[in-house]
Amino acid sequence: MSNSSNSNKKVKALRCRECNAEYEPMLKYICDECLGPLDVEYNLDSIKVSRNTFAYRAKNYWRYIELLPIEDARNIVSLDAGFTPLHRADNLADALGLKHLYIKNDSMNPTFSFKDRPAGVAVSKAKELRLNAVGCASTGNLASATAAHASKAKMPCYIFAPYNIEHAKIAQALSYGAEFIAVDGTYDDANRLAMQVAEHMNIGIVNVNLRPYYVEGSKTLAYEVLEQLSWNMPDHLIIPVASGAMLNAICKGLEEMRMLGLINNDDIDVRITAAQGKGCAPIVDAFKNNRDEIIPVENPSTIAKSLAIGDPGDGIYALRRLRQFNGYAEDPDDDEIVDAILMLARHEGIFTEPAGGVVIAALKRLVEQGKIDKDEHVVCYITGNGLKAIDAIDDRVKISRIVKPMVEEVLSIIPQQQPHI
Amino acid sequence: MSNSSNSNKKVKALRCRECNAEYEPMLKYICDECLGPLDVEYNLDSIKVSRNTFAYRAKNYWRYIELLPIEDARNIVSLDAGFTPLHRADNLADALGLKHLYIKNDSMNPTFSFKDRPAGVAVSKAKELRLNAVGCASTGNLASATAAHASKAKMPCYIFAPYNIEHAKIAQALSYGAEFIAVDGTYDDANRLAMQVAEHMNIGIVNVNLRPYYVEGSKTLAYEVLEQLSWNMPDHLIIPVASGAMLNAICKGLEEMRMLGLINNDDIDVRITAAQGKGCAPIVDAFKNNRDEIIPVENPSTIAKSLAIGDPGDGIYALRRLRQFNGYAEDPDDDEIVDAILMLARHEGIFTEPAGGVVIAALKRLVEQGKIDKDEHVVCYITGNGLKAIDAIDDRVKISRIVKPMVEEVLSIIPQQQPHI
Repeated sequence: MSNSSNSNKKVKALRCRECNAEYEPMLKYICDECLGPLDVEYNLDSIKVSRNTFAYRAKNYWRYIELLPIEDARNIVSLDAGFTPLHRADNLADALGLKHLYIKNDSMNPTFSFKDRPAGVAVSKAKELRLNAVGCASTGNLASATAAHASKAKMPCYIFAPYNIEHAKIAQALSYGAEFIAVDGTYDDANRLAMQVAEHMNIGIVNVNLRPYYVEGSKTLAYEVLEQLSWNMPDHLIIPVASGAMLNAICKGLEEMRMLGLINNDDIDVRITAAQGKGCAPIVDAFKNNRDEIIPVENPSTIAKSLAIGDPGDGIYALRRLRQFNGYAEDPDDDEIVDAILMLARHEGIFTEPAGGVVIAALKRLVEQGKIDKDEHVVCYITGNGLKAIDAIDDRVKISRIVKPMVEEVLSIIPQQQPHI
Repeated sequence: MSNSSNSNKKVKALRCRECNAEYEPMLKYICDECLGPLDVEYNLDSIKVSRNTFAYRAKNYWRYIELLPIEDARNIVSLDAGFTPLHRADNLADALGLKHLYIKNDSMNPTFSFKDRPAGVAVSKAKELRLNAVGCASTGNLASATAAHASKAKMPCYIFAPYNIEHAKIAQALSYGAEFIAVDGTYDDANRLAMQVAEHMNIGIVNVNLRPYYVEGSKTLAYEVLEQLSWNMPDHLIIPVASGAMLNAICKGLEEMRMLGLINNDDIDVRITAAQGKGCAPIVDAFKNNRDEIIPVENPSTIAKSLAIGDPGDGIYALRRLRQFNGYAEDPDDDEIVDAILMLARHEGIFTEPAGGVVIAALKRLVEQGKIDKDEHVVCYITGNGLKAIDAIDDRVKISRIVKPMVEEVLSIIPQQQPHI
């Protein structure tokens, strides 16, 4: 990897998003000049793809290997994540008065969230960079996705979290054999420690020193929606936002597919809306108040815990994307979120975590405000499953009545129907 | 549906598995003559399929519509279940001394278990039969799968269960809008009540009066493995067993594909092994003791609760299949099951419920007993995810040490590595 010329490689360089400085594609994530974040830049001329390139490949996100930052396909660590269903949500559309509503159901992934995309790319790159271990600071979706891919890669994995978290929260991640670095401190301390480890040790912390590669995984959420819509651009995407990285990556994915000429429409005429939970909505707040900077939220308070990043690392970039793509931003409260979880489940049979409720609640708000036309093609990103957050809905699904085990009792409850056969 | 001739339909009849009596394909499941179970019989001559029929279709189990008992495709109720990954488990294979081990990872379904297959077919048939409601007696995977598909079908759904079960167990199913028929009695009472309702009311209880159609969904687990192995027959399938219906359906699926001439091998030369948890293993017990009848287990006691059916409805047929397919039967205990859950997670990044642990533990036993040759192609069916049964592994993933939030502390834990870049 010390070859100074990358002209025959897919990844040309890491480039600073702020000052444009260029670096060798290695284990690096911050610009030496300006401390800006680094992005993967490809040798676009060398990328030869058409729609047919992808069409007959295995249905996972590695079908877009030409546009992912792994040079040698033997380094791919795959659990068959991605190419999740784009679910046509006609029942929910009817309920909201829309005609073309789609759910990108990314709960159907190997560890049951979209994090299998960025974590899988990061672990693959760790293998390509011949790192001997990976890790992250998380107790949730990211921890499980990183640990699962590390186990498939036969790499040690270290999960940084406060020592006193609930066992059940981290049990999935640890089941994959990851080691729990139990930090005597807060969640912020655990985060800081993981960042220091990324600085001082030769370990790939997936969302820190592997971050330029990591975020590339999330852009496949754009590629797939385009391919699943037969390369037609939808009118409106509604995206849950935590750090802002996923929203930014989805926008990058749309732009790349346009540059490669794969989209039917000439322009990217799509609206991008951000959804955060009230109580931790720094990006929505900046957008609504027309500010250019993000004011961190000191004490996040929302049931959408997987989105509750008070000081979002890519917040400023997500904010710029909302303006670039003529979008909106909404921050539904806990009651709206729970209502929306149940609304999605009851109309479409899709059971999501609170982050998904945030998206559907934001959709509902936009419809009520007249900001979505009924003829628009709208895509909602549902990025995680509801099983890990049962308590969010638990007291909304109470028993109403108890019956004796006799069929006569049931006859009085269930409306009698004449046979139709 | 009152047409007396079904010659131009896909489903020719319902036929008694015991006495061969033939019935109109309607809402019926027990033979009037001998009380035997009814199976769907197709007009095989009218089924024109080749490998190419399926190859380019959407990746869900409805790609096999020609072989599923829905006459009119407009009645399909789909959540995009099925065509889950056939995961090449090379790490686990290495650990066990095997060469060709595959995991059929059916945890990656919309409600996160294989039950989306039979429940989806049953709800679709309920729609085709113009029933006005569906239901089942279950608190687990079946309840969720039935409720989710009912919500997509806009049909009322009734879940029968004891009133005093834990809320969290049934919350997912109820989130989809199903109504909880809370029975003042035991689980057996709830089950009996659901069967009585199926007898007396015009409601489709998916695994009772819709059972002939319901079980057809599970045979797609055979079709998919064959297609994913390029239509080569594997040497050995290891299948978790509860009622025995799924094992029987998988065998039926293999036979149908052979009859249709789609399998490369002329004969079905495959071994079928059944796996149940010790403490509720009536089928394994009958097989190992060379008995022809199943002795019910009065008080099931195993952590593999989704398999814990003491008096399995299709037990006798599963037993016959094991003999027909020259198989084995194993009943690992709780410790072996937990070990196996962790073994699968740590080697392959797949987190399963205890039923999946039963399968991997059975595999391990067979390897240790020299009953599987290292060159065999072995497929293990993993039919549900681990998130709902975190408590099964919770005390096996304890914290080992606590560190202060300083990088020096971590340096003492994580082996130092030289940069390889």
